[in-house]
Amino acid sequence: MLTLYCTPGTCALASHIALEDAGADYVTKRLDFAAAEQTKPEFLSINPKGRVPALLTPRGVLTETPAILAFIAQSFPLAALAPLADAFAFAKLQAFNVYLCSTVHVAHAHRMRGYRWTDDPAAIEAMRAKVPETVGACFALIEKTMFEGPWAMGASYSIADPYLFTLARWLEADGVDPNGFPNVADHRRRMLERPAVQRALAAESAA
Amino acid sequence: MLTLYCTPGTCALASHIALEDAGADYVTKRLDFAAAEQTKPEFLSINPKGRVPALLTPRGVLTETPAILAFIAQSFPLAALAPLADAFAFAKLQAFNVYLCSTVHVAHAHRMRGYRWTDDPAAIEAMRAKVPETVGACFALIEKTMFEGPWAMGASYSIADPYLFTLARWLEADGVDPNGFPNVADHRRRMLERPAVQRALAAESAA
Repeated sequence: MLTLYCTPGTCALASHIALEDAGADYVTKRLDFAAAEQTKPEFLSINPKGRVPALLTPRGVLTETPAILAFIAQSFPLAALAPLADAFAFAKLQAFNVYLCSTVHVAHAHRMRGYRWTDDPAAIEAMRAKVPETVGACFALIEKTMFEGPWAMGASYSIADPYLFTLARWLEADGVDPNGFPNVADHRRRMLERPAVQRALAAESAA
Repeated sequence: MLTLYCTPGTCALASHIALEDAGADYVTKRLDFAAAEQTKPEFLSINPKGRVPALLTPRGVLTETPAILAFIAQSFPLAALAPLADAFAFAKLQAFNVYLCSTVHVAHAHRMRGYRWTDDPAAIEAMRAKVPETVGACFALIEKTMFEGPWAMGASYSIADPYLFTLARWLEADGVDPNGFPNVADHRRRMLERPAVQRALAAESAA
């Protein structure tokens, strides 16, 4: 049994969808960010980083979305969520996910979490102002050079797809028009048609 | 044959060391950041992100340090640079490397590359001022909760070690005293004793 610590609206959705894709036996535990539950001792004993997602496994806790997604793909090989036997193709997939984690999500985080990098309110506002440009540049790169189609990595659906979908859902709030990126926008629409995605989103919406 | 595009002083050192660890057949191509070679069309045709490292393989180009490191480990299994057959242990290792990439390196980057996230010179200065605190907090977390010892992931040297070493070399310049983190500081000293590390550093220093 796996337990996914998650919060609606966060990048934990990517791991949530992947668990559904994999047909995994799992439960979710929801952290209330409004009550700062992720900073309380109870959760810090699980994930000292104070972030979601965290995946509790019988052998311990895993963190970081690209690592969790690769773990799900490796643990449920029949779901064929990654080219596990092809080191180059697996690395391409991982490079896609690491870019989402270290560049796209970071660019996005400068809108709401600028306090991570400065204490100056004026600087936080200045960082926020550039988010449409930086996030837009990330998605332009994805659209033109990384997205292979029809799925992120080409013909086969993979663990890159729920992650791309999750971050692409933030575009409007980041001040970026998704229609500037037809492949990404179409991917987002097609992801919504998948039952696994619908189940994860319904669970997030449930009271 | 592999070709590593790299620049001295950057995180490309981690992949460089791992190629030495693996006994790989490779060459390096050095990009001159002072001449902004990473932004020129010749390199952008190889890596549209305009960043190092990039690893040219017979099947195409790979980017993102955690993905390149995992590729090296998978491509040279006899070097035993990752627990490839253990999905949980591999995910723990990947979580370590993704944290270095998406949180530690990003915290560090706010010292010299704040222009990525704002155009305001005052905000760039404000971001720079917090770097000792943010990078210090990252290494405190590594020291207390992530570093297993004697190597990053425990008894076995792995692809987490050259990456940790590479980022730990920036501590002083980031305004952080390495002696506040005895495990990390000792690891850095022991890494310098390894011939593979010495070879990579010598190549970086060569004219």
